[in-house]
Amino acid sequence: MTDYSKVDAYLESNLDQSLDELGRFVAQPSISAQKLGLHEAAAMVADMLRARGFTPTIHQTPGAPIVTAERKGKSDKTILFYNHYDVQPPEPLELWESPPFEPQIRDGKMYGRGISDDKGHLTARLFALDALLAEGDLPCNVKFIVEGEEETASVNMLAFVTGHKDILKSDACVWEFGGVDHTDAPMQYLGLRGIQYVELTVDLLSTDVHSGLGGSIFPNAAWRLIWALNTLKGVDERILIPGFYDNIQPPSARDRELFAALPDVADEYRERYGVPYFIKGLKGGNELKVEEVFSPTCTICGLTSGYQGPGSKTVLPARASAKVDFRLIPDQDPADILRKLRAHLDAHGFTDVKITDLGGDAPARTDPDHPFIKLVVDAAKDIYDKPMSLVPMVGGSGPNHPFVHDLGLPVATAGLGYPDTRAHAPNENIRIDLYLKHARHMARVVREFGK
Amino acid sequence: MTDYSKVDAYLESNLDQSLDELGRFVAQPSISAQKLGLHEAAAMVADMLRARGFTPTIHQTPGAPIVTAERKGKSDKTILFYNHYDVQPPEPLELWESPPFEPQIRDGKMYGRGISDDKGHLTARLFALDALLAEGDLPCNVKFIVEGEEETASVNMLAFVTGHKDILKSDACVWEFGGVDHTDAPMQYLGLRGIQYVELTVDLLSTDVHSGLGGSIFPNAAWRLIWALNTLKGVDERILIPGFYDNIQPPSARDRELFAALPDVADEYRERYGVPYFIKGLKGGNELKVEEVFSPTCTICGLTSGYQGPGSKTVLPARASAKVDFRLIPDQDPADILRKLRAHLDAHGFTDVKITDLGGDAPARTDPDHPFIKLVVDAAKDIYDKPMSLVPMVGGSGPNHPFVHDLGLPVATAGLGYPDTRAHAPNENIRIDLYLKHARHMARVVREFGK
Repeated sequence: MTDYSKVDAYLESNLDQSLDELGRFVAQPSISAQKLGLHEAAAMVADMLRARGFTPTIHQTPGAPIVTAERKGKSDKTILFYNHYDVQPPEPLELWESPPFEPQIRDGKMYGRGISDDKGHLTARLFALDALLAEGDLPCNVKFIVEGEEETASVNMLAFVTGHKDILKSDACVWEFGGVDHTDAPMQYLGLRGIQYVELTVDLLSTDVHSGLGGSIFPNAAWRLIWALNTLKGVDERILIPGFYDNIQPPSARDRELFAALPDVADEYRERYGVPYFIKGLKGGNELKVEEVFSPTCTICGLTSGYQGPGSKTVLPARASAKVDFRLIPDQDPADILRKLRAHLDAHGFTDVKITDLGGDAPARTDPDHPFIKLVVDAAKDIYDKPMSLVPMVGGSGPNHPFVHDLGLPVATAGLGYPDTRAHAPNENIRIDLYLKHARHMARVVREFGK
Repeated sequence: MTDYSKVDAYLESNLDQSLDELGRFVAQPSISAQKLGLHEAAAMVADMLRARGFTPTIHQTPGAPIVTAERKGKSDKTILFYNHYDVQPPEPLELWESPPFEPQIRDGKMYGRGISDDKGHLTARLFALDALLAEGDLPCNVKFIVEGEEETASVNMLAFVTGHKDILKSDACVWEFGGVDHTDAPMQYLGLRGIQYVELTVDLLSTDVHSGLGGSIFPNAAWRLIWALNTLKGVDERILIPGFYDNIQPPSARDRELFAALPDVADEYRERYGVPYFIKGLKGGNELKVEEVFSPTCTICGLTSGYQGPGSKTVLPARASAKVDFRLIPDQDPADILRKLRAHLDAHGFTDVKITDLGGDAPARTDPDHPFIKLVVDAAKDIYDKPMSLVPMVGGSGPNHPFVHDLGLPVATAGLGYPDTRAHAPNENIRIDLYLKHARHMARVVREFGK
């Protein structure tokens, strides 16, 4: 392998400047759920790329702008980085130890909303390129696609990617996230489950009514919702929508082998989340790890109806709604699930349950034995104390399907996350040692890929 | 019948002073749900009674004070008035045309929180006594019981009444509310359904979890709640708790006859509440009127779990809860229903669903042919343009059971309400003409009762 001592020395000595840049980036609020600061953040991303000799383009979409950029390098091969500049809302504000948009360094960590998810990743990757550029030209062509709606289901990404295959054409892709587990072993996540997020709404009366009046004779939106939801999944956790389990690819022997190499999670979950028991009779071990990601879900994420304050209020609610997400595994398709959900509700007489499509992503995986995955794993070897673990799929979702299936790319993950990074939560933070390691890793990946 | 011209002349000429007194009473906030101003309002009630020669006592309870008072009269018979000084919270404040605790007269109406429910009733009744006292002694003994937790399920009334039978001993009772229907016909409500209000809570994890992580392997509190609720009532509206329908007394031929004399409600409900259809295949007519009050209910009043904001948030909720009220009809018993609910949930494996008892009242009715009811109906004759209608029971609830069954009293209703009185809502108001009519009616009731 190439000698990376100069690259590492550059990164060591310029770390403070990179963290300053990250601090300015984090200080720009860019909350997609609240449509706040998105154009400003997109412009900032374009400026950061331009400063590295990239030629960025800001594409307007029906939602937040998408920034793409390219800089040519020595080899013909092209690596594509997918990142996002939007962040989660910072609330509840009172739980932050320092203001979410005034980044602060304390005890080897840097705090701020979006510093881990995903601004730290983008900045560390640019920092890696700085180290390579300090020695001359880039080793290969490098492209970026940086969106501003990842935290709101990337609703415009599928259309953008499929409509811009030319400018996104590449040979491999590095995904926005990654990190180390609780033993500081870096993780390579090889796929994402898909998702179909819906809101189910029942709206029956023009106003809430005193329950003493309507209880015996008026239809109750909350009851209609309960009965409709109950038809979706049984107490045994089996999802009851006809055809829901069609097209599912079970985990392969190789997948099971990879899971077996990963640490047990049962005790960690019991402790961290107070899980009293696992469903489906699961006890732990490999079975739990496989089921965690290789089974699709129907999760109620929220319920809303009527009176929710303290004590009692005797009201018959006019309206009730539920937020429900379906996590999908290859080869389930979100649009197909949405159609089957509608047909199922109609067949059970729940034509009064309205479905609002809040976004979907198809599931996608990358072959664990793809050469690019091997390259990324190998490039981590002299940086981290432990070898990179291969995780066949994670439970979360993201817009990787068009990258895998429309652009035809292997998608690797690598990042600066760690178990206490608190993405989406108050006091989101990064470990500065992992920020530096990620930059070192990314510099190696780009150079090795260019060979 | 006695000549009431002097009484009526007194009420006509002293109306403004009575409304002034009502205004001062309404200006004292007394919100039981917020434990605000209750002791002050109880003291004010005691002062108002003392000013009429009553000897009031303020009884402390685990909740708001209860005021009782008595003044002897010419006959040995005793009439008891049940009222309450607490009011509903005034929110949403922005919908009030004048501040809720700054009563204002506009276009023959007087506005303020609690002016109809129930301060106007108490003040109008004291005003009626003023008219009688202006002519000498009271015609009979008069007692008052005025509580401060009617709007929060009268949780201390049952124990108070059964523990103070001596001081409440009477021959007849006038309930806190009443009024005219949309044709200005006064209504005599002869019973109240009972109620058992519960909160069902499922609490499974120590924190909400990303749905991509736990969806396939963690128990979901919202799903557990849905499945548990679904066992309580079928899509056909049949309540499935074993023994729930035990002890129910069906409406008598006399009840059906009384309902038949009342106006149809179907069109009124369709228009006022936007009811798209009636449940149980009901179309309207007498069947709808009977079912409205003579069937018990299981109403979901509220649902709460997880994310309820706009758009999507992929969260597996740690906790879920539902507010549920059961309206009960004679001879169902709230404590019995609570026991059966617990047994039912346990039998279906829902030992993880916690039940919080938020209060109950047993149902109670007064015989429509009781002489006291006839007296109240007859006393209304020369005041209202239409005869008083007899309603066998109403859908609402209240603590009338101990008055009927422990004190052994006939309980009549009469009041100053009307369909647009907006009790519990912004711009609560009374019609001043109906305030005066109610005082005239009450003066007649007390004098006729004393004969």
